[in-house]
Amino acid sequence: MRKGEVTRQRIIAEAAPIFNQRGFAGCSMQDVMEATGLEKGGLYRHFSSKEELAAEAFRYTVLRAEKVRFDKLDRTRGALEQLRLIIDRFVNLRSDVAGGCAIFNTAIEEDDGNPVLRNLALKALREWKDRVRRIVRNGIRAGEIQKDTDASRVANVVIATLEGALAMSRLEGDKTPLEDAQAMLGSFLDGITHRQAIPAERGVVNVAGEREAARR
Amino acid sequence: MRKGEVTRQRIIAEAAPIFNQRGFAGCSMQDVMEATGLEKGGLYRHFSSKEELAAEAFRYTVLRAEKVRFDKLDRTRGALEQLRLIIDRFVNLRSDVAGGCAIFNTAIEEDDGNPVLRNLALKALREWKDRVRRIVRNGIRAGEIQKDTDASRVANVVIATLEGALAMSRLEGDKTPLEDAQAMLGSFLDGITHRQAIPAERGVVNVAGEREAARR
Repeated sequence: MRKGEVTRQRIIAEAAPIFNQRGFAGCSMQDVMEATGLEKGGLYRHFSSKEELAAEAFRYTVLRAEKVRFDKLDRTRGALEQLRLIIDRFVNLRSDVAGGCAIFNTAIEEDDGNPVLRNLALKALREWKDRVRRIVRNGIRAGEIQKDTDASRVANVVIATLEGALAMSRLEGDKTPLEDAQAMLGSFLDGITHRQAIPAERGVVNVAGEREAARR
Repeated sequence: MRKGEVTRQRIIAEAAPIFNQRGFAGCSMQDVMEATGLEKGGLYRHFSSKEELAAEAFRYTVLRAEKVRFDKLDRTRGALEQLRLIIDRFVNLRSDVAGGCAIFNTAIEEDDGNPVLRNLALKALREWKDRVRRIVRNGIRAGEIQKDTDASRVANVVIATLEGALAMSRLEGDKTPLEDAQAMLGSFLDGITHRQAIPAERGVVNVAGEREAARR
């Protein structure tokens, strides 16, 4: 990687938690200068505007979160186990970029705001929904999930509940809303399970189990 | 009401949607001056700081939303019907202050930000949870809801799901996430219903029914 590109990547990584915590309106290029130790000229050599940097920071933050949520998910057999693992990771693991979920932060902060960031949030939300939908459809094809299950509804319910609970947990400084969401979503998934389904391998249903399985 | 108080109230009402849409960081006193047609001196005669005005605007916005969500709820008999009505109103009615739910907007925007606004959001969230919890406990006492139901969990799940779905619906410009949340929460409430419960009067389960009932 060329030196200029290394600097550019470092700026993005250091700006990411500032934008994610303070939002686009609450974060100035001055804040980024202070965090990176760069002069104004140095910053603008790499990014033509605050908007361009904020967009790159958003993409970076979403990629880091997706790694935590979805990495090596296919090691887990079965659609229902994959859904339970996504939920468990969302409840128990956070990405290394501080400030909560970038998609919903940006969705709420920019719904009446910056159209570039708003569209990035919309695109990221759609990708997340597609991911859940695909797993549900695989589960239906495999006879694991009931045939009449609405994959889009499952995606909407899982994402809405987890994201709402994360916002509550962060505000209250208490994990209970996330744990309550996990318990409810567990029953919700039981409700769409095909009654004849053979239970998938139970070793990898949560983060602890996942670590255990990876060790073997 | 004295003239000064009338002006103060008008400023709050006109600033409320601006703060709710743009957030504290994204809204300047200049924006409020433009919306109200007041000079800087006129504005600062009533509010010592942007923070003071934002706090009053938040309280106003929450009161307007609570009126929509909870007004005359006791006309509906039965805890489960009250819960269903709160959900139905959240899905189908919005308050007259634009910008979505002030509690979650502020929760997400100020979780790493302004502590005064953050604490107001926390207090408003607690009051909302208390309201749902009280209804659940009344339902348990009345034999309508299963005895072992965790009232706090019901509150967390209902609020998290509705708020997450509202953020999704606003970002996507599509009501489906809210409708999916309502369908799922309907099943969730069926799951905590005491099996021996006598069904409550079914005329007032949704906004349409409520209007009908109010007319009679």
